[in-house]
Amino acid sequence: MPATIRAEVITIGDEILFGQITDTNTQWISTELTNIGIRTVRKTSVGDQADVILDALREATTRADVVVITGGLGPTKDDITKRTLCQFFGVGLVRNEQALDLVTSFFLKRGRDMTDLNRGQADLPENADYVQNDWGTAPGMWFDHNDTVYISLPGVPFEMKNLMTHRMLPKLKERFEMPVILHKMIRTIGIGESFLAERIEAWEDALPPHIRLAYLPSFGQVKLRLTATGTDADELTRDLNEQVAAVLPLIEQHVYGYDGDEIEQVVVNQLKEKNLTLGVAESCTGGQVAATLTKLPGVSSVFVGGVVAYSNDIKHIALGVSSESLARFGAVSEPVVCEMAEGARVMLGADVGIATSGIAGPDGGTPDKPVGTIWIACATATGTTAKLLRLGQYREQNITLTTTYVLNLLREQLKKESSIKDFKL
Amino acid sequence: MPATIRAEVITIGDEILFGQITDTNTQWISTELTNIGIRTVRKTSVGDQADVILDALREATTRADVVVITGGLGPTKDDITKRTLCQFFGVGLVRNEQALDLVTSFFLKRGRDMTDLNRGQADLPENADYVQNDWGTAPGMWFDHNDTVYISLPGVPFEMKNLMTHRMLPKLKERFEMPVILHKMIRTIGIGESFLAERIEAWEDALPPHIRLAYLPSFGQVKLRLTATGTDADELTRDLNEQVAAVLPLIEQHVYGYDGDEIEQVVVNQLKEKNLTLGVAESCTGGQVAATLTKLPGVSSVFVGGVVAYSNDIKHIALGVSSESLARFGAVSEPVVCEMAEGARVMLGADVGIATSGIAGPDGGTPDKPVGTIWIACATATGTTAKLLRLGQYREQNITLTTTYVLNLLREQLKKESSIKDFKL
Repeated sequence: MPATIRAEVITIGDEILFGQITDTNTQWISTELTNIGIRTVRKTSVGDQADVILDALREATTRADVVVITGGLGPTKDDITKRTLCQFFGVGLVRNEQALDLVTSFFLKRGRDMTDLNRGQADLPENADYVQNDWGTAPGMWFDHNDTVYISLPGVPFEMKNLMTHRMLPKLKERFEMPVILHKMIRTIGIGESFLAERIEAWEDALPPHIRLAYLPSFGQVKLRLTATGTDADELTRDLNEQVAAVLPLIEQHVYGYDGDEIEQVVVNQLKEKNLTLGVAESCTGGQVAATLTKLPGVSSVFVGGVVAYSNDIKHIALGVSSESLARFGAVSEPVVCEMAEGARVMLGADVGIATSGIAGPDGGTPDKPVGTIWIACATATGTTAKLLRLGQYREQNITLTTTYVLNLLREQLKKESSIKDFKL
Repeated sequence: MPATIRAEVITIGDEILFGQITDTNTQWISTELTNIGIRTVRKTSVGDQADVILDALREATTRADVVVITGGLGPTKDDITKRTLCQFFGVGLVRNEQALDLVTSFFLKRGRDMTDLNRGQADLPENADYVQNDWGTAPGMWFDHNDTVYISLPGVPFEMKNLMTHRMLPKLKERFEMPVILHKMIRTIGIGESFLAERIEAWEDALPPHIRLAYLPSFGQVKLRLTATGTDADELTRDLNEQVAAVLPLIEQHVYGYDGDEIEQVVVNQLKEKNLTLGVAESCTGGQVAATLTKLPGVSSVFVGGVVAYSNDIKHIALGVSSESLARFGAVSEPVVCEMAEGARVMLGADVGIATSGIAGPDGGTPDKPVGTIWIACATATGTTAKLLRLGQYREQNITLTTTYVLNLLREQLKKESSIKDFKL
């Protein structure tokens, strides 16, 4: 097995140090490095001053085989990063013709005049390998110096991610002899981390040493990430598939997808497969279920729309919930949430309807129905299923969890019903 | 003016280095430090190994007056951080009776047995000032060593934030002689950063040296943050208010709030003041407007609900949009968005209705109506106002921007209409 390649990520920018902007780059970069088998050993953020950048570069050199530098390449800060790199490597700036062509064509296309400042964007440290940035005007740079690779990237996430994905990561894989690392993610829902761990304990203990397991919990979900390390990709793929097949029978009812599948994409795929349409009726989630579905491009072929029925009047008028049920059981009740789901089907003209009604908090709780009491339902042509959730006291958390759980209820119902005609209106 | 106090933030945890979890702590900490006048000069993340933690501590000591350490205090990692701190300071661990009382009462309350491992949570480095954590079982620790203050905090954001806010920040303000720093944020909408900068250039150039201005742009909004530094809080408040009064006439129509006011809270406050209710009709935003309003506790007194009218059928049935308008002008058109906003009022029984209809992308664009073509409208008893947005090609961005802009259109309309009765149905 080749030796571990160690990386350090350096972020440059006063605005990050002072907390003015959220740095999403470093997490993304270290995830990508991990995925190709490079181990991040340190992350550092420094300000826009040459001396502190030089310090960080010198320190990183003692620890890392790869130093990834982001930021400090904007139009106004252009000089500081490039000049500091020149100082660090003991070289001068030279104009790069390829970079100049790119900047020139960028301005030509937009019919704008180019200034010397713009032309300066094509000046690179002498020892830089120019890495073409097709997503902006700041150049990507690659330095191979005394056995350490330095990568300089713009801080704009869109440009940085494209440069890393399409240029730098392939170059790194070529430059270093690295172990093959493969990942497989099993996505579960509706079971807590400790219960899951208990259920798969024997399987986990029997994992071979080259496969590691990580539990990644998030709202209402736990992702199991298997990481296999070795030298042969086919062999590792086979090993991973074997382990997934072994653990699946223990947790099958909770598994909704693999790798990048989000729950909303999974249910939209189910709906598309079965040629069914969906309507939603939301009270306590207040539009979050609809908004989560709407984020998916092309969802309009299965998602007809929804009603956010905050008031009882709208539950009655727009969803056809009976005034009697509302009066007798209250808005947060099994009968009402079922009528809402059925209303979403019938009134919106969809094949399937889902609904939420509950007390998201912080106010509105009673001894009988404390904050966190939430009903969800799913109505199809064959019947309606409701479920009671007992959640916590935090409003936003309750909304997020309810959204996930009602989508999961829909997934379960769609899985049960194998025949399309059972569903159709 | 006292000298600048410099801070370094060290985050401990393999899971952050490998990109498995998002580190939201360091941004929060550096914002809070900035707010009390402490300048963060570096942020560092290292793994759960004693030697790398020691390196980071030694390096930080050479640069900072305050070193804030988070993470590595969980039940399984408890020993590493505390033992490493002992090694760093050259001291041993001793049991702290106050910390033991707290852990004991935590277990008593829950009726659970305590193990030696649990009791170990009350062992602290000899030179630590114990800082009581009322939000969990890991102790807060404060070390004052060779003129540098070291603060150790658990990594759980909820515990960390409470410990910082209620214990550590007040202690820091007492420990160091610091300048008084006050902030005032002016929140603007509907004007780009460069146009804003142009418009207030003369004012900005004339700012006194003790007041600095930062532009903080985010989706469709630009926040202007004024920071005043000095020794007298009353004087600084007066200076800030004077500057706000001076700049306001230049940008008044774009200012929707100050400091922490979000646009959705601003419109909800307007509605409450005027005793009006709101209904929403969404096509391309697909529930995001409703969901954004629903996040606010207590919104149900003014927000009656909404219709997510993804399909034309629902636009017609649930909102009363005429089939003729849909056929003649298409769903993405001024007449349809106006009818949707009016439908949100009339069909949902609200005083005011707002609506969105557009092509969020990535598909569905035509030469006539490319992706990013989006209509928004606001209907009141006195009439309906529509606006055309020409946005970009990214679906999520278009949804977010449209949500912000339609709430702003509502804000503008509510501002215009001074009399409540004009509005009432």
